[in-house]
Amino acid sequence: MNDNTADSADGLFRLLFLGDVVGEPGRKAVGLLLPVLKDELKLDFIVVNGENSAGGRGITPKIAISLMRAGAAVVTSGDHIWDQREIVPYLADEPRMLRPMNYPEGTPGSGFVVLESKKCKVAVVNLQGRTFMNQQLDNPFPAIAALVEKLREETPVIFVDFHAEATSEKVAMGWHLDGKVSAVVGTHTHVPTADERVLPKGTAFQSDAGMCGPMNSVIGSQVEPVLERFHTMMPTRFGVGSGPVRVNGALITIDPATGKALSIERVARTWHE
Amino acid sequence: MNDNTADSADGLFRLLFLGDVVGEPGRKAVGLLLPVLKDELKLDFIVVNGENSAGGRGITPKIAISLMRAGAAVVTSGDHIWDQREIVPYLADEPRMLRPMNYPEGTPGSGFVVLESKKCKVAVVNLQGRTFMNQQLDNPFPAIAALVEKLREETPVIFVDFHAEATSEKVAMGWHLDGKVSAVVGTHTHVPTADERVLPKGTAFQSDAGMCGPMNSVIGSQVEPVLERFHTMMPTRFGVGSGPVRVNGALITIDPATGKALSIERVARTWHE
Amino acid sequence: MNDNTADSADGLFRLLFLGDVVGEPGRKAVGLLLPVLKDELKLDFIVVNGENSAGGRGITPKIAISLMRAGAAVVTSGDHIWDQREIVPYLADEPRMLRPMNYPEGTPGSGFVVLESKKCKVAVVNLQGRTFMNQQLDNPFPAIAALVEKLREETPVIFVDFHAEATSEKVAMGWHLDGKVSAVVGTHTHVPTADERVLPKGTAFQSDAGMCGPMNSVIGSQVEPVLERFHTMMPTRFGVGSGPVRVNGALITIDPATGKALSIERVARTWHE
Amino acid sequence: MNDNTADSADGLFRLLFLGDVVGEPGRKAVGLLLPVLKDELKLDFIVVNGENSAGGRGITPKIAISLMRAGAAVVTSGDHIWDQREIVPYLADEPRMLRPMNYPEGTPGSGFVVLESKKCKVAVVNLQGRTFMNQQLDNPFPAIAALVEKLREETPVIFVDFHAEATSEKVAMGWHLDGKVSAVVGTHTHVPTADERVLPKGTAFQSDAGMCGPMNSVIGSQVEPVLERFHTMMPTRFGVGSGPVRVNGALITIDPATGKALSIERVARTWHE
Ligand SMILES: [Fe+2]
Ligand SMILES: [Fe+2]
Ligand SMILES: [Fe+2]
Ligand SMILES: [Fe+2]
Ligand SMILES: [Fe+2]
Ligand SMILES: [Fe+2]
Ligand SMILES: [Fe+2]
Ligand SMILES: [Fe+2]
Repeated sequence: MNDNTADSADGLFRLLFLGDVVGEPGRKAVGLLLPVLKDELKLDFIVVNGENSAGGRGITPKIAISLMRAGAAVVTSGDHIWDQREIVPYLADEPRMLRPMNYPEGTPGSGFVVLESKKCKVAVVNLQGRTFMNQQLDNPFPAIAALVEKLREETPVIFVDFHAEATSEKVAMGWHLDGKVSAVVGTHTHVPTADERVLPKGTAFQSDAGMCGPMNSVIGSQVEPVLERFHTMMPTRFGVGSGPVRVNGALITIDPATGKALSIERVARTWHE
Repeated sequence: MNDNTADSADGLFRLLFLGDVVGEPGRKAVGLLLPVLKDELKLDFIVVNGENSAGGRGITPKIAISLMRAGAAVVTSGDHIWDQREIVPYLADEPRMLRPMNYPEGTPGSGFVVLESKKCKVAVVNLQGRTFMNQQLDNPFPAIAALVEKLREETPVIFVDFHAEATSEKVAMGWHLDGKVSAVVGTHTHVPTADERVLPKGTAFQSDAGMCGPMNSVIGSQVEPVLERFHTMMPTRFGVGSGPVRVNGALITIDPATGKALSIERVARTWHE
Repeated sequence: MNDNTADSADGLFRLLFLGDVVGEPGRKAVGLLLPVLKDELKLDFIVVNGENSAGGRGITPKIAISLMRAGAAVVTSGDHIWDQREIVPYLADEPRMLRPMNYPEGTPGSGFVVLESKKCKVAVVNLQGRTFMNQQLDNPFPAIAALVEKLREETPVIFVDFHAEATSEKVAMGWHLDGKVSAVVGTHTHVPTADERVLPKGTAFQSDAGMCGPMNSVIGSQVEPVLERFHTMMPTRFGVGSGPVRVNGALITIDPATGKALSIERVARTWHE
Repeated sequence: MNDNTADSADGLFRLLFLGDVVGEPGRKAVGLLLPVLKDELKLDFIVVNGENSAGGRGITPKIAISLMRAGAAVVTSGDHIWDQREIVPYLADEPRMLRPMNYPEGTPGSGFVVLESKKCKVAVVNLQGRTFMNQQLDNPFPAIAALVEKLREETPVIFVDFHAEATSEKVAMGWHLDGKVSAVVGTHTHVPTADERVLPKGTAFQSDAGMCGPMNSVIGSQVEPVLERFHTMMPTRFGVGSGPVRVNGALITIDPATGKALSIERVARTWHE
């Protein structure tokens, strides 16, 4: 017996989402903290964005597997998904490893998955914004509307990782999906926002979950090379930062019968080696 | 007698910064709440970003004066500063109305001001980022470094409103100025971030203060026209939203002798008409 | 009797395309020169891009009508199509006034038209590029491929005005459509290119036709305000230039039976008031 | 004796400029054609833009030396200058290998050079535009004005390779420098423009010289991979095209006493292996 039984008492579905895992420091911290958080927060389901988990640039199959072993039911991604070539065949093999859904037809991989969990069926969607990013992707607004309509035939419990840069696009997406999905949580900026709330029709929203990566860094990268880059115009490669790691995410409680969110709260833990 | 005497006891300088004021709803809420906050938070100095206070687009002299009457010692701005033509001559007349400092030489107005306050001399700087914005401005990194060196001859108490889009540029600016200014607080995205902290060398930092504007909006604008815009490619004008207003800002305590920050905390109030 | 009979001798279809007409100077020159060119070049069909004909910004119904009266069978446009509001209802009424075809579904107006001419049916298509422009339009490559397939059921004589900025996108479009349409001629940069040729499978191509506008200008605008704009970062409005007008275009000869182009040559005339 | 004596008769200075050399095909064609052109066109001075000569991406010291051996007095470049790392130390050693001048202070290499020729001292400047390119470079307009003022103390014969994308910026630069330099010729788009002319105050101008590279390509790259790239959003590397090579450039005649241009004409040759 375990304390998930206690949790089952209220019958709510508790989903934890962790933002962009950055490099080895991020992987280590997530690997160690996820099992602890699962217990402490009585989690039913975990989603992790892994787009920067391979040295800050993309993700490999091996890393995706390790995130799933640590507890992630689904690994989402974003614009960095193509950085490591080995991920392309893996996307075809592992339906729980997602790429943003609004790439053109014929792109390898899938942007959503529907899974069974103890309490309900859960759909997880990965979506990418266009403003200040690759603007040539399919428009995420009609794309997600059409997909959600189909997914709701299977389950009302739908989690959307909206990987986007501009706050206007992110906030607009929250309103666009209010009442249609359980939660819209943003990723990509690597900085958590303090605007988490449940929108009027029952969708939990936060502009950005923040990253899981080294605190004393520039959104995960070593400070000095980034500062140098902002001073010169010559190409530079940034290493992943070091030191204490901040794990950022959001905990959402959802009524599994209706898919409506009851609460969303920021989750943040600092991990020192 | 008033409770500012109590405050004077610890000798710390208490500065409140409010993020982008949006339209009439934002102006009203700030006008009513600022005097209350001044008392409640025992404020020594108030800075307000007013770049969207005129119907979401820029600021007029009249509005700047009203913000100052409500308690703002300095009004900062950003990329929207040129939206209302009447502001151009006003920038020359009123040194406490700032535009971003890193415009090319010859641009009307000033990007910084040094004022006397009861506890210390205070420098306020307005700076604009380049990533995902007007990239043709002067590089803010060397520009601010040179200015800060000069300002420190007058006072170590320096507040920087860094009006920028990209989290990488904002966080990098925090590290760039750590130990050289009292605080770097971002504006422009209209969403408050949950990353406020005092950096190792004593500079308070927050990626974005958030806005003072209607909550049920897309960063200040009415939801429906913005959603329409994200679906079509035809030009649209967005009105300012309505309903309850969220006033977002940051309270920073500073040692007036050294200019070092001791704390930074998010301030948020909701105002219903 | 008229000298078109002489022309009819070789049975080829002679199409003149004129690039972006800029302001009143451009309109005047085109209005006076088109009838002359029609005779001189024994033209069967005239297409004119009018996106800058209203003071440099968009086009009005009245101006579109005047261009048609001067001889244009079809008026094409580009990114400036929405600058004048009155054009929106006109787009619905006049099938020979085109907007770029690759706007999202539901956008007013049409991006192509099929007309009867003495020698053959002619399809004219207006298409917009994405690189360095509005990248959120539908991808022009698959969009035009699907449309051309349908148009070829009606006629093999297809003219495409590809309104685009980047040479890579324009040249790629030429290869993409080689053998499928009669001609792909670019617009938007306002500078004629010297790369006109018939591609191996029979499609005439030129990266840009150039504009019909004042020579002593910056792509149609007065020199001084543009230079000022390149020096400061403050908003400026540019007036249309004055003085001698350069009318730039391309003459394409097409086999009406197969739709294949036999030749393309630059046409340029200078007009002084 | 050689036929340069004939040329010396009119005393004019004849400068040939060749646009971006692309890959091995471009290098071969230029290597074989330059000596021929030197004779045929009675050239006094040759400048070649080599920014794509190493497989389309940058230039190596070895290639720069081979271009100089073929006759180039100066090799200019552009945004691709940093693609090959070995060029960085070479920039310090070889003053006739230029990078764009408007990089921030402290950038390796130089953006101009003054050389002696038989008829006059010649200054060659490499400048980069900002619109649609790296917008964070120093503003080319004031940068070139200041440099030209200094160069004119040494010689009025000044050639400017303006490596830029937007026609507006290129044409504006022509007017900006009219009467101050001998010629402004653009590069970077790889497509020659048909707008060559001598501006009213004596500066030869052409928006773009075009490239020296394979004709049946997309601005130098193989057609198929580029078309694939325009259809999908996944990363692709483009190889250099093959087949016949087009060598594009401009021949400018200059009065060496005044620096004023008397003529500019397009030069184009097709080379088959
Ligand atoms: Fe990321
Ligand atoms: Fe990302
Ligand atoms: Fe703002
Ligand atoms: Fe702003
Ligand atoms: Fe145009
Ligand atoms: Fe255009
Ligand atoms: Fe190039
Ligand atoms: Fe280039």
